[in-house]
Amino acid sequence: MIDKVDEFNAYRQKMNDKILGENNKVLKRIFNLDTNSFTEGALDKNTKELLGLIASVVLRCDDCVKYHLESSYKSGVTREQVVETLSIGTLIGGTIVIPHLRRAFEYWEILEQKKEHSEAEE
Amino acid sequence: MIDKVDEFNAYRQKMNDKILGENNKVLKRIFNLDTNSFTEGALDKNTKELLGLIASVVLRCDDCVKYHLESSYKSGVTREQVVETLSIGTLIGGTIVIPHLRRAFEYWEILEQKKEHSEAEE
Amino acid sequence: MIDKVDEFNAYRQKMNDKILGENNKVLKRIFNLDTNSFTEGALDKNTKELLGLIASVVLRCDDCVKYHLESSYKSGVTREQVVETLSIGTLIGGTIVIPHLRRAFEYWEILEQKKEHSEAEE
Amino acid sequence: MIDKVDEFNAYRQKMNDKILGENNKVLKRIFNLDTNSFTEGALDKNTKELLGLIASVVLRCDDCVKYHLESSYKSGVTREQVVETLSIGTLIGGTIVIPHLRRAFEYWEILEQKKEHSEAEE
Amino acid sequence: MIDKVDEFNAYRQKMNDKILGENNKVLKRIFNLDTNSFTEGALDKNTKELLGLIASVVLRCDDCVKYHLESSYKSGVTREQVVETLSIGTLIGGTIVIPHLRRAFEYWEILEQKKEHSEAEE
Amino acid sequence: MIDKVDEFNAYRQKMNDKILGENNKVLKRIFNLDTNSFTEGALDKNTKELLGLIASVVLRCDDCVKYHLESSYKSGVTREQVVETLSIGTLIGGTIVIPHLRRAFEYWEILEQKKEHSEAEE
Repeated sequence: MIDKVDEFNAYRQKMNDKILGENNKVLKRIFNLDTNSFTEGALDKNTKELLGLIASVVLRCDDCVKYHLESSYKSGVTREQVVETLSIGTLIGGTIVIPHLRRAFEYWEILEQKKEHSEAEE
Repeated sequence: MIDKVDEFNAYRQKMNDKILGENNKVLKRIFNLDTNSFTEGALDKNTKELLGLIASVVLRCDDCVKYHLESSYKSGVTREQVVETLSIGTLIGGTIVIPHLRRAFEYWEILEQKKEHSEAEE
Repeated sequence: MIDKVDEFNAYRQKMNDKILGENNKVLKRIFNLDTNSFTEGALDKNTKELLGLIASVVLRCDDCVKYHLESSYKSGVTREQVVETLSIGTLIGGTIVIPHLRRAFEYWEILEQKKEHSEAEE
Repeated sequence: MIDKVDEFNAYRQKMNDKILGENNKVLKRIFNLDTNSFTEGALDKNTKELLGLIASVVLRCDDCVKYHLESSYKSGVTREQVVETLSIGTLIGGTIVIPHLRRAFEYWEILEQKKEHSEAEE
Repeated sequence: MIDKVDEFNAYRQKMNDKILGENNKVLKRIFNLDTNSFTEGALDKNTKELLGLIASVVLRCDDCVKYHLESSYKSGVTREQVVETLSIGTLIGGTIVIPHLRRAFEYWEILEQKKEHSEAEE
Repeated sequence: MIDKVDEFNAYRQKMNDKILGENNKVLKRIFNLDTNSFTEGALDKNTKELLGLIASVVLRCDDCVKYHLESSYKSGVTREQVVETLSIGTLIGGTIVIPHLRRAFEYWEILEQKKEHSEAEE
């Protein structure tokens, strides 16, 4: 179960490399912007991650939710902050969001378990 | 194949329990509303189920379609009524809906087979 | 205010005539299907109108909502049935649906007033 | 131009009153949740307003954007924070978001002018 | 009626200038990409314009449709090509697209009339 | 990996047959239109395939993307033309499209490998 994170990231990386390997200027710049726009500015990094998370949730994109859950987790966002963000997303986006909510909660738990697991191994 | 219904429901229930376990007021109330809003009122239960089904189809949410197919089935909605509902959803939502239509027809058949199977066992 | 219905229908008719005047086979058939698919079948006409209404609401298409509100009104659907349909649409589609809900309520009132007005004139 | 805010709010309030006047339990509870879910919790009010704003932008709902721009403005969110939020929304939601961005910038300016105007009158 | 094109473009330009005046790097780059990605490459300009048009239609963005109709018109795309593109968009996107189709046909006619008008004046 | 194409097509065909077996007039006509609207007219077949592809991408329908990738491939569309189409779709639809882009690139490679494999066998 814990490997789901690594598996997701490996596929993501492999295909991103292929896409960028096409040397299409538009795609390369969009990928580049995606990396840069979540750095601290007038808003801190954690807030930006939660903005990315709620946008992904209401647009119902599971892979985008996973991506922002992991970067939120690494950036130090708390479980309570994620839950509040998801609750606002569900209110705004409607019950149609709920299946994505289930998968988001599952993925967040895997991230927490992976952390515990890696700490236990040290 | 028949077990797909049980598997879907088990995952749904497990994750719903976790989500509700967060004690987030907004999420709890939305889940509660979801259960309550499909009870008979000015519209009968079957009509409400079909309203839930077509909304799920045009918003292209497979899990929501499955959920409403099962509750429609249990509520006594006929195959012909489901097909007409899905046809209106496909006209309004466009051919982009068709992949979800395929999975909806497959799930409805599983529900019918599960019923026959359980009757054969009695 | 009452003329908003006539104005909407006049524009609709004028542009539909132009679109159909292009003699594009795909468009002509889709328009034709749209007219035909709301006739009574395994589901009665009122139920089909409400299916069209909720699909329009969750897809957030004001003109489609207006169209189905008028045909629902003419078909004898009650205010209570419309309100229940819109409430399920708002739950499923989320609070993002609310601005469309406001315009739907406003249009339904215009339809009711237009009826009263025309009856008073007789 | 400044009156656009008052006009928007007056229509909003008038129609919300009518909707709530229907005494539909589901609608009343959703409206109630909408009011309550943006209060401070694990996330502060400003962050929640920006979450509401980006969700509205990527779902391309002009009225929802206006509503969250005004509550963000009143809550003390800065222009720079709004611009960063809108920029992330445009990256995630695509150039299809740009027309809504134009109207968002226009509305934010009206809010700023209204403030200046009211201060000048004092 | 003919002035609708100028009015649309004036508002577009005015607000784009304001948005770019914010000096937000993400927004500036997205606007820049938008200008550049429709230049001839493996696909000719007309084909790219029609790709932009159908994407705008199925995502139901009136302003984006207007923008691509005008650039298609200027690029020499024929009425028949536009109609076929819109017909595929309506089939894929469903009847929910039809209100946008009406406004698209109206705008295309304005573009044609504006051309005739300007030729008559010479 | 190469069998993914055959597997996808087999499921598609099996379920399409069941759907058409319902004898629902609306569904039969929509399926029929879907087959017919991609034939050469004012636009050539390749352009129409790319219109179908970008509409599927921005509406984020993986199965529809696969379908149009295969028919584009068979129709002689080049890799460069597909990449440019996908890049415009990503710009218009936003980074939310990227997960679908990954799966699109993967599927296109499978189509290319399947071709090479079948040529090697001759």
